[in-house]
Amino acid sequence: MTLDDLLATAMAVSEAARPIPLGYFRKPMEIVDKADLSPVTVADRETERVMREVLAARVPEHGIFGEEHGRERLDHRFVWVLDPIDGTRSFITGMPLFNNLVALLDNGVPVIGIVDTPAIGERYHAVKGRGAWFNGQPITTSGCTSLARAAIYRAGHAPEDAAQAARFERFADQGRVNRYGYDAYAYALLASGHVDLMLETDLEPYDYLSLVPLVEAAGGVVTDWAGQPLGLGSTGEVLAAATPELHSQALALLRQS
Amino acid sequence: MTLDDLLATAMAVSEAARPIPLGYFRKPMEIVDKADLSPVTVADRETERVMREVLAARVPEHGIFGEEHGRERLDHRFVWVLDPIDGTRSFITGMPLFNNLVALLDNGVPVIGIVDTPAIGERYHAVKGRGAWFNGQPITTSGCTSLARAAIYRAGHAPEDAAQAARFERFADQGRVNRYGYDAYAYALLASGHVDLMLETDLEPYDYLSLVPLVEAAGGVVTDWAGQPLGLGSTGEVLAAATPELHSQALALLRQS
Repeated sequence: MTLDDLLATAMAVSEAARPIPLGYFRKPMEIVDKADLSPVTVADRETERVMREVLAARVPEHGIFGEEHGRERLDHRFVWVLDPIDGTRSFITGMPLFNNLVALLDNGVPVIGIVDTPAIGERYHAVKGRGAWFNGQPITTSGCTSLARAAIYRAGHAPEDAAQAARFERFADQGRVNRYGYDAYAYALLASGHVDLMLETDLEPYDYLSLVPLVEAAGGVVTDWAGQPLGLGSTGEVLAAATPELHSQALALLRQS
Repeated sequence: MTLDDLLATAMAVSEAARPIPLGYFRKPMEIVDKADLSPVTVADRETERVMREVLAARVPEHGIFGEEHGRERLDHRFVWVLDPIDGTRSFITGMPLFNNLVALLDNGVPVIGIVDTPAIGERYHAVKGRGAWFNGQPITTSGCTSLARAAIYRAGHAPEDAAQAARFERFADQGRVNRYGYDAYAYALLASGHVDLMLETDLEPYDYLSLVPLVEAAGGVVTDWAGQPLGLGSTGEVLAAATPELHSQALALLRQS
């Protein structure tokens, strides 16, 4: 398969996912808790099932790492990483910025990433080495190279680990704008030049792997909090920046002892 | 003028405001700081100017309390309270949940309120004693009567005052969902039954007065943190809840010594 074929499959997965949550959005539904206490819905499970059906029809031999329905064939060269509803807390409180996320790993390296925000009709996608797009139009990160001038978003909750939380708090007084939250959508805005820096912890691979090609192909840098590349085995810390200079400054602040 | 006439004027003010910010949204622009350091844009000022033009043409004798262009005739029975872009931090970072807010005070009591979210085509409006609507469809708050089961939103930044911040933090472990931020849009979701409780501080009258008719006419309760009704002279603390029972529980938690 060519990279074009793989991209077509990724877009088909996202397209199939798109309408399902909208059938449940802002409607009464049963809400259950998972072991990690994040809210998850019937819509979540049905959406991932539909995404997997597309993969089963087009690339049945590939691996899959999904949030809701588990992992299979992770030893294959190509592994698809799926989050049917990123931002379930947004979803269940009527906030329209939830997303479906699709990543393709090639030998562990994220090469295709999609952030699709169905309630507002936005899709961000990227291919490593080729570029990034918002609804088909090319996007790039901002040129921001200064922490003091950065628009900073941090995860909507403080890190669970106390040492991580203390490092997270170093950013509280940084930047020209400093806000909380918004899940994967904040990285999409970083890739399109509106947000400059994003920090998070306690993420799972399906939360962050789609964001790697998106941020990188748009001109940004994204790593864990130690500056290491992100993969299936990462720590769940994410630091994304519009430029290498800004990323270095943020990394230096995280590393201060 | 009848209440119908006043509502028609309120809707005309919001309708006139709607397209202006969209001409600047996600486009490069000069950003200046006001004395309170909140970001404000050319779009903000131009939008309020257009809103005031509608009032000047239709109700030139009424009072106006606007965020950008000041106050006039506040001794008139009817005073219009205008926020051209609520959520300027959203606006300048590409987040589509910014709003124009319109409130009408009748002898100091908010009787009409509009939250209009132009980037996603949503308008919430309410008339005291008549009801609340989302894009023309009637809305009501949820029936949530339990703090433990509530979907809670808190302001996107901690209160500036340390004592307020400590009371704010009492809510950190409450609720089935607990998130930060989203400005006036969170109250619109509370009025439409998706969010159950919202707490904020450090607000100005143009931030909160439009939300009073919206929350109340939808079945909820909104006061300051002492349980007092909101008006032009309030403290800037807001507590909004889906039901009187939930409001009482939240007020009790705020009052604990």
